[in-house]
Amino acid sequence: MPRELPIDDLPDLARGAALLGAGGGGDPYIGLLLVRAELERGATITLLDPDEVDDDALVVASAFMGAPTVVIEKIPGGDEPVQALRSLERHLGRAADAIIPMECGGLNSMIPLLVAARTGLPMVDGDGMGRAFPELQMETFGVYGVSGSPIAICNERGHTALLDTGPDNHSMEWYARAVTVRMGGVAYIAEYPMTGAQVKRTAIPGTSSLALALGRVIRLAHDEHRDPFEALAGCLATTIYRFGHSLLEGKVVDVERRSADGFVRGSARIATFDGGRTVELTFQNEHLMAREGGRLLAVAPDLITVLDAETAFPITTEALRYGQRVRIFVIGTPEIMRTPEALAVFGPRAFGLDADWTPVEELVRIR
Amino acid sequence: MPRELPIDDLPDLARGAALLGAGGGGDPYIGLLLVRAELERGATITLLDPDEVDDDALVVASAFMGAPTVVIEKIPGGDEPVQALRSLERHLGRAADAIIPMECGGLNSMIPLLVAARTGLPMVDGDGMGRAFPELQMETFGVYGVSGSPIAICNERGHTALLDTGPDNHSMEWYARAVTVRMGGVAYIAEYPMTGAQVKRTAIPGTSSLALALGRVIRLAHDEHRDPFEALAGCLATTIYRFGHSLLEGKVVDVERRSADGFVRGSARIATFDGGRTVELTFQNEHLMAREGGRLLAVAPDLITVLDAETAFPITTEALRYGQRVRIFVIGTPEIMRTPEALAVFGPRAFGLDADWTPVEELVRIR
Repeated sequence: MPRELPIDDLPDLARGAALLGAGGGGDPYIGLLLVRAELERGATITLLDPDEVDDDALVVASAFMGAPTVVIEKIPGGDEPVQALRSLERHLGRAADAIIPMECGGLNSMIPLLVAARTGLPMVDGDGMGRAFPELQMETFGVYGVSGSPIAICNERGHTALLDTGPDNHSMEWYARAVTVRMGGVAYIAEYPMTGAQVKRTAIPGTSSLALALGRVIRLAHDEHRDPFEALAGCLATTIYRFGHSLLEGKVVDVERRSADGFVRGSARIATFDGGRTVELTFQNEHLMAREGGRLLAVAPDLITVLDAETAFPITTEALRYGQRVRIFVIGTPEIMRTPEALAVFGPRAFGLDADWTPVEELVRIR
Repeated sequence: MPRELPIDDLPDLARGAALLGAGGGGDPYIGLLLVRAELERGATITLLDPDEVDDDALVVASAFMGAPTVVIEKIPGGDEPVQALRSLERHLGRAADAIIPMECGGLNSMIPLLVAARTGLPMVDGDGMGRAFPELQMETFGVYGVSGSPIAICNERGHTALLDTGPDNHSMEWYARAVTVRMGGVAYIAEYPMTGAQVKRTAIPGTSSLALALGRVIRLAHDEHRDPFEALAGCLATTIYRFGHSLLEGKVVDVERRSADGFVRGSARIATFDGGRTVELTFQNEHLMAREGGRLLAVAPDLITVLDAETAFPITTEALRYGQRVRIFVIGTPEIMRTPEALAVFGPRAFGLDADWTPVEELVRIR
């Protein structure tokens, strides 16, 4: 049933989205403030499950693109992602019937809510990444045949770019990244225009609800003095993600980070307090791979998250610091993200990693 | 009167356009071959003077954008600039009534002729640069208030970008350059959609005819064993450019050239055969400044050209080589290119040169 998102759910949703960001995607906090301001002004947000969308409805994915660190310096006025949607609608000659998140992890959990609140359009509870990923072609929509373009890209100065690369979503990302960099490092996009039928076939369902549930679990465990990691694992077991597991608890002993081509790349080492075990994390915005010695422990698209050891609050790759006491918590991805087609687009080799994907639940069991 | 461009005029037009390229703009030869092939297939090209365009006609500027050296490696199929026009027409919801060259110098003298031949649209005899310039905001259209965007950018793969930066033509150039680089270094554009009334007010009139006349003068002087430089100066005296002058004859004694940010920048030194005088040329794609010792001899927007000492055939900045025997020939620009508004956009300081513009005819007289 279409349902309204209560304002009081926003903090839990934001925390859960930060967790699904897998270290990247940007802090949802600024987005939370913008959405809350809309709801306080009396706006409402209606959520639809994918199977509640009409087959012939026009659904558009909404997001910001670029460096999350820049968003903090150039806080959006709030209208930029709406302008992107309107530009795309004009180009298509048709109004959207609903919007859908491109990415349920990080700040992009909030941008579509902002658009929903400002336009009155319902938002589909689902997304195209099931987590955060760094590039626009890394979406299940595209994996299963939807063209990402035409895409509309807008900035705070009212400048607009419309790109059409036919079915070539890699080229869309390639051009859009260049425009975003020249727009000042962050822009707002409307992309993957698709039918309701395509949403049902290609979206990862229920990911906003999942973020909300995970955020709530962390908060309640904290309030009730229970182990948040056990609670997270218990919650995940009931979802299409099925699997959550504490890989290691310890201290951050090394972080190496560099910015290149609009991405943050680097690695971090986390050692147990007795120094007996050390896990190395490799990241490109998001954590992509966890290894111990040469042995693979988890790899994208499965989620590798770094959480505060006490509170289970998520820590982004930018916020990793020497000496932090953390727990590495891994999460399995839904089946729709694990097909050969999906792994070709966002499996380890799509990130240039020399590893084959193995389900994280198997890697953990081997151990 | 609207008139047909005879196929036999193409070589003269191309040579004159190379001269007006002022060392840049790319060799028109490939464009000439493409246009000739269209005319040989039976297409015709109608030329209109600016005052023959209806005031409310929609006129669109047509060009390639990017590195001329790449065009030689990625020879256009011929349809790319037409696709750019069609994309812009779809975006505007209106068909163009005529096209106009963005740039009368270099290869861009030929691209709009190709579009005219392929579409049957008339081409306005005039342009927005009166020569070749390296950037899209450097057009009299924009100087006198026409917005360059929306602009359509297409490549040979059918990828399209539509940019809208309102009246901000610098930002249009900034984003379009990034897209062009990622499209492989060359792309085809349709820009500065404007009314016939705007064409009359902002275009430099008669520049295709001028190129044709200059090319013919060079050819006839060659055939008739007359001094081509005197003939060029005589021809220019009858036009709105008014002034052409041989600055120096000598040998290329030094060339320094580097590629950066999608442009070719550098300098060349040309010394008289007795070594008594040396002129230094500074270029960014086009020659921008000529100095002797510290003294200014000519500076953009006036045209500085390097011609073969014997034939007066134009030599591009890429083709400059040690030991070439050349003549530096300077040309004054029309009044419409010399107003304070125009000099703010393509005067010396717009190129980062530490010089104030002085009319070339005065600089030569001072000497």
